[in-house]
Amino acid sequence: MIDAKTVWADLEKIRQSSPLIHNITNYVVMNSTANALLAIGASPVMAHAEEETAEMTALASVLVVNIGTLSTPWVAGMERAVRAARDAKKPYVLDPVGAGATAFRTDTVHRLLGLGSPTVLRGNASEIMSVHTSEGSTRGVDSTEQSDSALEAGRALARQYGCPVSISGATDYVVSGGETIAISNGHPLMGRVTGLGCTASALTGAFLAVDPSPMDAAATAMAVMGICGEIAAEKSEGPGSLQMHLLDAFHNLDEKQVANRLKVGHETR
Amino acid sequence: MIDAKTVWADLEKIRQSSPLIHNITNYVVMNSTANALLAIGASPVMAHAEEETAEMTALASVLVVNIGTLSTPWVAGMERAVRAARDAKKPYVLDPVGAGATAFRTDTVHRLLGLGSPTVLRGNASEIMSVHTSEGSTRGVDSTEQSDSALEAGRALARQYGCPVSISGATDYVVSGGETIAISNGHPLMGRVTGLGCTASALTGAFLAVDPSPMDAAATAMAVMGICGEIAAEKSEGPGSLQMHLLDAFHNLDEKQVANRLKVGHETR
Amino acid sequence: MIDAKTVWADLEKIRQSSPLIHNITNYVVMNSTANALLAIGASPVMAHAEEETAEMTALASVLVVNIGTLSTPWVAGMERAVRAARDAKKPYVLDPVGAGATAFRTDTVHRLLGLGSPTVLRGNASEIMSVHTSEGSTRGVDSTEQSDSALEAGRALARQYGCPVSISGATDYVVSGGETIAISNGHPLMGRVTGLGCTASALTGAFLAVDPSPMDAAATAMAVMGICGEIAAEKSEGPGSLQMHLLDAFHNLDEKQVANRLKVGHETR
Repeated sequence: MIDAKTVWADLEKIRQSSPLIHNITNYVVMNSTANALLAIGASPVMAHAEEETAEMTALASVLVVNIGTLSTPWVAGMERAVRAARDAKKPYVLDPVGAGATAFRTDTVHRLLGLGSPTVLRGNASEIMSVHTSEGSTRGVDSTEQSDSALEAGRALARQYGCPVSISGATDYVVSGGETIAISNGHPLMGRVTGLGCTASALTGAFLAVDPSPMDAAATAMAVMGICGEIAAEKSEGPGSLQMHLLDAFHNLDEKQVANRLKVGHETR
Repeated sequence: MIDAKTVWADLEKIRQSSPLIHNITNYVVMNSTANALLAIGASPVMAHAEEETAEMTALASVLVVNIGTLSTPWVAGMERAVRAARDAKKPYVLDPVGAGATAFRTDTVHRLLGLGSPTVLRGNASEIMSVHTSEGSTRGVDSTEQSDSALEAGRALARQYGCPVSISGATDYVVSGGETIAISNGHPLMGRVTGLGCTASALTGAFLAVDPSPMDAAATAMAVMGICGEIAAEKSEGPGSLQMHLLDAFHNLDEKQVANRLKVGHETR
Repeated sequence: MIDAKTVWADLEKIRQSSPLIHNITNYVVMNSTANALLAIGASPVMAHAEEETAEMTALASVLVVNIGTLSTPWVAGMERAVRAARDAKKPYVLDPVGAGATAFRTDTVHRLLGLGSPTVLRGNASEIMSVHTSEGSTRGVDSTEQSDSALEAGRALARQYGCPVSISGATDYVVSGGETIAISNGHPLMGRVTGLGCTASALTGAFLAVDPSPMDAAATAMAVMGICGEIAAEKSEGPGSLQMHLLDAFHNLDEKQVANRLKVGHETR
């Protein structure tokens, strides 16, 4: 259960404690991910080599793994990091970028899931559906499906792995076996900026560092993404300026903006 | 033969069909390339590992290969993708970034060209001259030559490989054996932003997805680059703001801007 | 000894000669580093593979090595480049990003230092202290220490390797065995943008191309970073806009801005 008060409290905790987030992510978004984490108040570090990922995860508060530009040496680095997070009981976010597009990506996701459940699994509808069925329905890395069409797949995965599943789309959903949080913030122009799903995964990591509930941390991250995306879009003339204003919005987000804009719904079944 | 009407028609087709463009490109420009493709209305995907490039090319409408930050495993991934594009008769753009600067780059270009002709070969004057002579005349990745000095090299390569060659510079030229299209759009400040040549290659890929003429697709991409660069430069105080406004200009480019600004010339010999 | 006149003279030399700077740097900052070098008037090239780094260093005026996202094949490429720079007596900057965070990073720094002294060693306080003690005190890549706490470590390293050590922080210090230059320019918001330390290393490379004194080149780079950071921060609403305005400020920096803003102190002991 999140509301404007809890979102704001979590945000203040990040700004005060500046948690170190270890990202093993894709080449496309490394810069924008690091900048988003800095803008929200966290401290990013990127390290991917098998030689050092376990050590870096040990230093960090949270591990975020994103398979957007995969290769075999990187999978080895990811596996070591995931094992280190599991053994140290540190939160770990998995973003299965492009799962379903190629066998290599789908196989890697299942290999990582086989090492232990992530704390949060976060992707778009196509990716979540692909992870569930292990069948290729993704076209590249953009979702070809509405987020609500992945709700059943997300709930099944949540039950199977015992972790909330965060599904981004026009409405963002965070689902566990029996609970659903729906966040209706955001702006269509966000889909014209690369890697905002990856940014959402990194912010999920930042909120996991300060919020003991994975479900709430995942939902809070999507709410902050959506609210800041709205603020940025209102100032922007296109996707170039949106990217810039989004970082400014993360940095400047205040209690009133959260209270005025948050659109969140809960459902328990 | 391109004119304002054909440029606009192609642009509308990209925005309507959002073609998937598979990019194997360099680390420096991955983010800006993906953002440019999204801003123009296409859908980018990046994948480089030998394990998945053939599969990803099979999903995509067009393949774009850019050798800007090369290593041996990436060459293997590029080769698989080029073979997959060739076998499926999909358009394929080759950008020989830094050809002539090192033997590794020049050799890789010739190895890729040996697998089959690209649909469009696109580079700056130094690179095109280096690919033609196989002699090192490039200093790094910026051209040390004017684009018109590469016209003969471009025509020779066009005849040899049976594909148009697109040469960027103050004036951009697209040449085949007997035809030349010259585009005089653009702004000098564009040379102070990294990777705009790489963006031009990616947009060439996007236009190849909707235009059956490689010559016209290549010229249209350079025209859209130049026109949007002019619009962006007029709003910018330097290269930082140019980069932002360029993405906004791609997103907002309208029929009137194309008609008012397009500066294109044709020559047949 | 630097002053407004020498800073301006060096800047003009960069803009006139556009020196080629070979960067082997991390994935996070490649784009922003290349853009910073272009904006200041230099010409960047990125190449990391063992197959070509020696050749690329031979073409360039200066080599900049940054270990921010390390892997074993990259270390091999770095070693070849450093040997090529040493043998050709070309200036070489080493930025030990995250030294102390993992054994792999600390070991790599010492392996590179073992090949020959860099012309300038540049890092934040935690990194410089870690290189000195070879003990891990870094938390990720952001400094946990004030820059003045690393002064003794910097002086010891400067004596050991016979090169100035440049330490970034609220006050930037460049130290040799007996001389200290302190630069008090800059703005706190710069710490919320990723990779500005890496940009400082790249600019150090650009100034080494035109200034025969490594000490002065290193201090001039920090002064230009700080001055442009102030100019950018005054126009910015957050870290997103700072990043954009910083590139514009590099491009537009004029003699008067340097004279009005430079805050530099010298101390000889």
